[in-house]
Amino acid sequence: MNGAAALLSTLRANGVDVCFANPGTSEMHFVAALDTVSDFRAVLCLFEGVATGAADGYARVTGRPAATLLHLGPGLGNGWANLHNARRARVPLINIVGDHALHHEEFDAPLQSDIAAVSSAVSTWHRRTLGADDLPRDAADAVAASYGPPGAIATLVLPADVSWGELTSIPTTWPVRPRVSRPRPTSDDLDAAARALARDRSALFLGGTALCTEGLALANRIATATNARVFSETFPAITDRGAGVASVERTIYLSEFAISQFSDIEHLVPFDATEPVGFFAYPDIPSRLLPETCEVLSASAVGFDALSALRSLVEHFDAPEVEIPHGAVPDAPTGALTTLSMAQAVGATLPENVIVVDESNTGGVHLYGATRFSPPHQWLTLTGGAIGFALPTALGAAIGGGGRRVLAIESDGSMMYTPQALWSMAREGLDVTVLVLSNRSYGILNLELSRVGATSTSAASRRLLDLTGPELSLCAIARAQGVPATLVTSADELVDALRRSFSTPGPTFIEAMLPAGLS
Amino acid sequence: MNGAAALLSTLRANGVDVCFANPGTSEMHFVAALDTVSDFRAVLCLFEGVATGAADGYARVTGRPAATLLHLGPGLGNGWANLHNARRARVPLINIVGDHALHHEEFDAPLQSDIAAVSSAVSTWHRRTLGADDLPRDAADAVAASYGPPGAIATLVLPADVSWGELTSIPTTWPVRPRVSRPRPTSDDLDAAARALARDRSALFLGGTALCTEGLALANRIATATNARVFSETFPAITDRGAGVASVERTIYLSEFAISQFSDIEHLVPFDATEPVGFFAYPDIPSRLLPETCEVLSASAVGFDALSALRSLVEHFDAPEVEIPHGAVPDAPTGALTTLSMAQAVGATLPENVIVVDESNTGGVHLYGATRFSPPHQWLTLTGGAIGFALPTALGAAIGGGGRRVLAIESDGSMMYTPQALWSMAREGLDVTVLVLSNRSYGILNLELSRVGATSTSAASRRLLDLTGPELSLCAIARAQGVPATLVTSADELVDALRRSFSTPGPTFIEAMLPAGLS
Repeated sequence: MNGAAALLSTLRANGVDVCFANPGTSEMHFVAALDTVSDFRAVLCLFEGVATGAADGYARVTGRPAATLLHLGPGLGNGWANLHNARRARVPLINIVGDHALHHEEFDAPLQSDIAAVSSAVSTWHRRTLGADDLPRDAADAVAASYGPPGAIATLVLPADVSWGELTSIPTTWPVRPRVSRPRPTSDDLDAAARALARDRSALFLGGTALCTEGLALANRIATATNARVFSETFPAITDRGAGVASVERTIYLSEFAISQFSDIEHLVPFDATEPVGFFAYPDIPSRLLPETCEVLSASAVGFDALSALRSLVEHFDAPEVEIPHGAVPDAPTGALTTLSMAQAVGATLPENVIVVDESNTGGVHLYGATRFSPPHQWLTLTGGAIGFALPTALGAAIGGGGRRVLAIESDGSMMYTPQALWSMAREGLDVTVLVLSNRSYGILNLELSRVGATSTSAASRRLLDLTGPELSLCAIARAQGVPATLVTSADELVDALRRSFSTPGPTFIEAMLPAGLS
Repeated sequence: MNGAAALLSTLRANGVDVCFANPGTSEMHFVAALDTVSDFRAVLCLFEGVATGAADGYARVTGRPAATLLHLGPGLGNGWANLHNARRARVPLINIVGDHALHHEEFDAPLQSDIAAVSSAVSTWHRRTLGADDLPRDAADAVAASYGPPGAIATLVLPADVSWGELTSIPTTWPVRPRVSRPRPTSDDLDAAARALARDRSALFLGGTALCTEGLALANRIATATNARVFSETFPAITDRGAGVASVERTIYLSEFAISQFSDIEHLVPFDATEPVGFFAYPDIPSRLLPETCEVLSASAVGFDALSALRSLVEHFDAPEVEIPHGAVPDAPTGALTTLSMAQAVGATLPENVIVVDESNTGGVHLYGATRFSPPHQWLTLTGGAIGFALPTALGAAIGGGGRRVLAIESDGSMMYTPQALWSMAREGLDVTVLVLSNRSYGILNLELSRVGATSTSAASRRLLDLTGPELSLCAIARAQGVPATLVTSADELVDALRRSFSTPGPTFIEAMLPAGLS
């Protein structure tokens, strides 16, 4: 048995059974070894950024790591941006980066580069395996490292000769590492959190694992009992939402509004989250969103068992059940397509149990509100700000979702980063609805150009934010990759297209033409 | 005047007048400052890998650096693979990486990452500017560093507040650094090279700057006078070729054939090149291509003034002029489209002075031979092995070429890495002919799967190398981005399409359907 087969068998034994792959020559033995394991799904991606984004989406939905298969430094480089998002989402993820044979390194062949340097900026765990017999140990260590807690990226560099090398002895069982539980806050920390929440002007701040139905309900009970407020991260990795799910105030993306949101908070208790900060810095706007005098408790910060902490606090306050407000889904809109009617169309048609992947940027400003009372669903957002996330992440979420419908809401500019994900959706026959909001510009940047204080409106600068000339035909790009596509220009058409897509197996692509700006 | 304007003015004063840009919020002042400089061309790219590949192509053709404009770590990550190719091409290139404001760093906002780590694996020079007044110095240093010699990547990290910050005093002139000349080999080194070349079984090995018309002619004169052979790198950054240009033996990509090529060489004298090595390692094939006993001279290695060395050696040997062989261009082929007839179609139609960017991989095996006697042209290849290079590099070569026609010969699998380059070609109205060789598979990998000794032919592994299911419509992807496209299925159609494209302004896209494999 060669190293590649041992690696795959160990991954499989540790519960990793999906690999998003873009292989090259140095990964050929890994590819060949796929024929030696059963119940292992390898998904071909035409670009590494698709593979890494898919692994992120898979992990968000399942809580389990997928592997990527990447080709040396350039493969890791191409996948880096979506790994950055995955790092910020704190998901478990395992990169297998094929490399030159160990004895080839001294020759500095064209594809050689400092893989460890590129990896260091996204990986919590990084190892280069030095022999086939080490692979079972290293693969098991990688899986364990990826689980954290919190979830993290583990990168295993697989030299070609280690991959093709024969094991001197084949273990009778593959090593499996125990999972480390999330630590529970100490009783002192819980007492401090309880004291803070009992005071005026306090708030719970939920992120990560706290944003599930149970966590949201517990937080709302505490908030009601203590008269505290409940916020969530601006960009959750994944959150339960919809009818019957307790809601929270989402931290607003624009710093000036977020500062106003938090202006009367003096005690913030994060649950699997860090303190909210400005996404970007702007002239004359503080980077810290909380009032200077606000205390931030560390009771149950990132990586802690947030649900256990919330349960303890509910008990502490003897917080009664809280009725979750009911509300109507929007009526199906008609007439002109605007950011509002688009959002209403989504809210009106969203079926139960959908996984929404949201990279709608400027065009999606009304989406969260319009779907508040839609049937229960999950919502994934752009955790790290590296655009080109929604299509790859939707691919992985669909594979991890085991048949659940995925709705990817994407922007035209962002879609053009990783359009290759569409091909893999078609190839795998996944139930993904891709809704692209087209305004034919980098809408967010037209906004930001003025927000940062740049005042120019002349041609040279505006031209860098404009996606016309030539007009992109996004539907054609989808069809070219095997995904049926529809262009919609009215709210009625969008409602019809969404309903049709939600009831049609396989991927479909809808481009919604929105007016430029925030109308 | 703010930092961004000072940066642009200094770049301009140092001869940098093109920027391939994919800006984000932190780069908005740089974008706005474009309106303050004249004779500066900013080219919008829809993906950072397009921007970096374009800067590579621009530098190969002009010998001068272009700037890229990238958005924090993820922007650099997306551009990393083509920066790797540019590093291997030893071209001058300047990355401007926008970053968070300096005072924002402590907050570890979502887009923050270790930019220096990612940069370190491609950049020879890296600096983060700490104040607007430092930008003129830092920009001038970056340009100087990029010129080397040899050419290198200089990465300047531009915090947003440095970009928007006002200079306390505006210099009367912008700093301009002198260019460092390439060192000439010492007379001892030249004597040693001359002694080696005078012996039996010797060869010149040309790379980098030696592969121009003059260098090739000089090398052939020396070879004829000494009975030495002349080789070139497998993957030159740029080489002059065609009728009237002396030719060389190109080092073969497949190690086993290259080993046979060099089997009787005992003395190798590189000129602006390093010793040839195997592209990949394979079981039972040496990584070193030269015989174990072969000596490799260091007379005029990478970064030295190869032309001066060649001139000195011509003088030393009193090497007479050598008549450059004449030959016929292929007849325009008819009938079935094969890798041979495709190559003949290119050879038969190639106009004078074209810049060919070659990422043809398996499908291009006959291209070099079929164009040997075509009118003089230049040929750019995949120096670093990171695929997705040809379309971006062709974009930059067209901008650097000042009206010269570019022919990008691309593979279907590689094209899907950076298809966004087509949009920028259309937007800029560039005379680029894109010829994509489609075999609907990762042809090179089907070959490599057997070469590495993997023997499996079962479904799970073969499926990872197969690009059917769904079929990609590459022409549709081109048209969707504003590039007229033609699918050709016979040699006659290809000849017609090439002729039409070569005489039509603006970009055109031709997909040539080739049989799978190497037929």
